[in-house]
Amino acid sequence: MTRQFTVKVPGTSANIGPGFDVVGLSLSLHLTLTVTVPAASEQPYLAPVITYSGEGADEVPLDAYKNLTTRVALYVLRCNGIRFFPPGLKLHAHNEIPFGRGLGSSGAAVIAGVILGNELGQFNLTKERLLDFALMVERHPDNVTAALIGGFVGSYLRELDEADTEAASVPLSEVLPEYPPDAGEDWGLNPPPPPAGIGHYVRFGWSEPIKAIAIIPRFELSTAKAREVLPSMYTRKDLVFNLQRLAVLTTALAQNPPDPDLIYEAMKDRVHQPYRKTLIPGLPEVTSCITPTTHPGLLGICLSGAGPTILALATTNFEKIAEDARKIFRAQGIEVDWKVLTIAGGSQVNNS
Amino acid sequence: MTRQFTVKVPGTSANIGPGFDVVGLSLSLHLTLTVTVPAASEQPYLAPVITYSGEGADEVPLDAYKNLTTRVALYVLRCNGIRFFPPGLKLHAHNEIPFGRGLGSSGAAVIAGVILGNELGQFNLTKERLLDFALMVERHPDNVTAALIGGFVGSYLRELDEADTEAASVPLSEVLPEYPPDAGEDWGLNPPPPPAGIGHYVRFGWSEPIKAIAIIPRFELSTAKAREVLPSMYTRKDLVFNLQRLAVLTTALAQNPPDPDLIYEAMKDRVHQPYRKTLIPGLPEVTSCITPTTHPGLLGICLSGAGPTILALATTNFEKIAEDARKIFRAQGIEVDWKVLTIAGGSQVNNS
Repeated sequence: MTRQFTVKVPGTSANIGPGFDVVGLSLSLHLTLTVTVPAASEQPYLAPVITYSGEGADEVPLDAYKNLTTRVALYVLRCNGIRFFPPGLKLHAHNEIPFGRGLGSSGAAVIAGVILGNELGQFNLTKERLLDFALMVERHPDNVTAALIGGFVGSYLRELDEADTEAASVPLSEVLPEYPPDAGEDWGLNPPPPPAGIGHYVRFGWSEPIKAIAIIPRFELSTAKAREVLPSMYTRKDLVFNLQRLAVLTTALAQNPPDPDLIYEAMKDRVHQPYRKTLIPGLPEVTSCITPTTHPGLLGICLSGAGPTILALATTNFEKIAEDARKIFRAQGIEVDWKVLTIAGGSQVNNS
Repeated sequence: MTRQFTVKVPGTSANIGPGFDVVGLSLSLHLTLTVTVPAASEQPYLAPVITYSGEGADEVPLDAYKNLTTRVALYVLRCNGIRFFPPGLKLHAHNEIPFGRGLGSSGAAVIAGVILGNELGQFNLTKERLLDFALMVERHPDNVTAALIGGFVGSYLRELDEADTEAASVPLSEVLPEYPPDAGEDWGLNPPPPPAGIGHYVRFGWSEPIKAIAIIPRFELSTAKAREVLPSMYTRKDLVFNLQRLAVLTTALAQNPPDPDLIYEAMKDRVHQPYRKTLIPGLPEVTSCITPTTHPGLLGICLSGAGPTILALATTNFEKIAEDARKIFRAQGIEVDWKVLTIAGGSQVNNS
């Protein structure tokens, strides 16, 4: 019997102002895999066939040993005793999440891979265990946790004991080795399995009328580059500034009706945004010129993840907020696209 | 007509692990003022008479121009156009909150003063405005906000504009001047009023079965001294450690039943506790030897405010947790008292 199923994973916005490396918000932009597993054949091995449409279709590798999603799936399979993809596996990916814009495209690819591995192997792993696998590949929990769980989520990485720290700190190249062109069947068969319980999370409430406007500049910014500009040390004052706002924000965004007076200031940040403004011309102008006073309905405005996308949370006036941000960016010579998004549920598998 | 009323203000525990200068929890230990205002008399001025019983009764000043609560009340009165205490004012304070132990005794004294001033002047100030006055005296919002609002509360200080920053940064000596012995009637009549909206807060949920065990060493530790040992700079890693845990903790403590696996790790801290352990012999031993594994029912354990009190949150096994902590402290030569406390409501005024 041929099996067919889909895996649907949302894009995400991380940080939401003060929640650097902590909070994530799932958005109504999806990466969807349509997976076909042929009935067991006599043939020993037939390489997976990957096709891809939508965002990133012209740059994503279609070799299953190079593609991030299938490599992660193989990692899950091999850690659970299955050495290879099912022969003749077919996989079509349709992607709505733009690459390199701070909307969680790579977190979605990782979560899609973890779920794909779990489904192909029929392991019935818990969400917690799926998260462990994801956190071995992507060490920051914000995007991957939100993509897996859905909604507005906060997470921490557990303090690991010595053995677990060693297991969890193996380089990515060992977790997901680059397969050399001449790799034989026995190559990279025993990747290091994740320790149990690396990440823990809670799902916060979310006030239903709040939507997210993603204002997406037409250029990519790598997370690595956006991390390089951050300082290694922070003053106690800046630390307390973010702690105070983050504590208030996670509960304030669940209140109905949401209070712009409380939220606007609670979405301010001193840990990453001030350092990233040089990478994103227009960021300081957008965040200072678009306020709840100038644009009623706006609740707060921040960088989405590492940027360059700007995320505005609002209850109304979406088009005006987006178009005015577009004008400010245009004055800096930057064209943007924008989308009004709702908060998405977590990743889903549907068997057909 | 003689007026009589009571003001009842709870003690508080700040920080709760990762929430340094951010979160506060009100506890069932109270400072209660019983206030008598005689009918308007012909006599121009009769100094207030203060009496005091309970914790701190042997050290608290009973001169209304030296006592913290009445000085704060006078500040509120004078900022709102009333120059003096009502002639013949009588005030009895009964205090259950031990001094200098990290249980919010001075925050309670400040909130009692703000409410007393508001009641004496019959100003009907909002809670937000009362908080502004409190924040001019006590610049850290955690204890005072929890004492005013009640329950489990998070707060931030707004980024003030230049004029407001100037107004809010006047030294405490101008807000609450020390009255010299020869001060005449026109001395210190015009203190600087607070800017509006200095502090903003939310009240988190609280899971009903959780109680707080306060393990109170028999020595005082001044907040100033406990702040001196803190570094001025923190690594990004430690900053993210606390941000991640704080985000999870505020929501995790509202879940029913509360999850010790999630909460115990979320109550860890790298911002203040590691630096304060030299001031509190026994702290590292108590926090490492009393865990949810050794003491089922325990959810988490932390320093209460700046210490020296240890706060353990638990759903059962209260006496065992407290007695084992007592043994550990005793081995360090420190005697402790302990109390099992519930979470209190906010400050209350009752007219009689």
